[in-house]
Amino acid sequence: MLMVVDLTHEALLLAGRARTLAAEAKKEFAAVLNKVDENTELFLRRELAAAGIPVPGALNFSRGINRANLVGEPLPTVEMRDKLKELFV
Amino acid sequence: MLMVVDLTHEALLLAGRARTLAAEAKKEFAAVLNKVDENTELFLRRELAAAGIPVPGALNFSRGINRANLVGEPLPTVEMRDKLKELFV
Repeated sequence: MLMVVDLTHEALLLAGRARTLAAEAKKEFAAVLNKVDENTELFLRRELAAAGIPVPGALNFSRGINRANLVGEPLPTVEMRDKLKELFV
Repeated sequence: MLMVVDLTHEALLLAGRARTLAAEAKKEFAAVLNKVDENTELFLRRELAAAGIPVPGALNFSRGINRANLVGEPLPTVEMRDKLKELFV
């Protein structure tokens, strides 16, 4: 089970709960960070490590994706392709 | 009727629909921008103006609020107080 964790306290709390449920169901559980920068990535990795949740990868905040999401254009995912390959291969 | 519009295309579309509903109910309708910077404020103001939606105010992206929202602390609203007074007095 792979959960996306973004920059909110709620996402962290939810990850903790999901981890418990996954453990009860005997499923592996991990979190991928989303929209992080250096500081927030460090903070989230520390918090999740403390909760026993592995973080196999992180997607950085992208100005291009943010812009496309605002104007309603298709998301430019090219820049994320390598990161996603890392995660899913 | 006052709607908060953040930096997504969905929020813009939703504001358009809400404006129509408000007009049918003969209610005034306006939008307040949230988490904007100079560029995004300009873009959203232009789009909303084109849709006939007044924008009486805008709250800027705040690193402090973002941080508090991440670590689960009370939001530091002091910096927004003047802006909010402008809007609601």
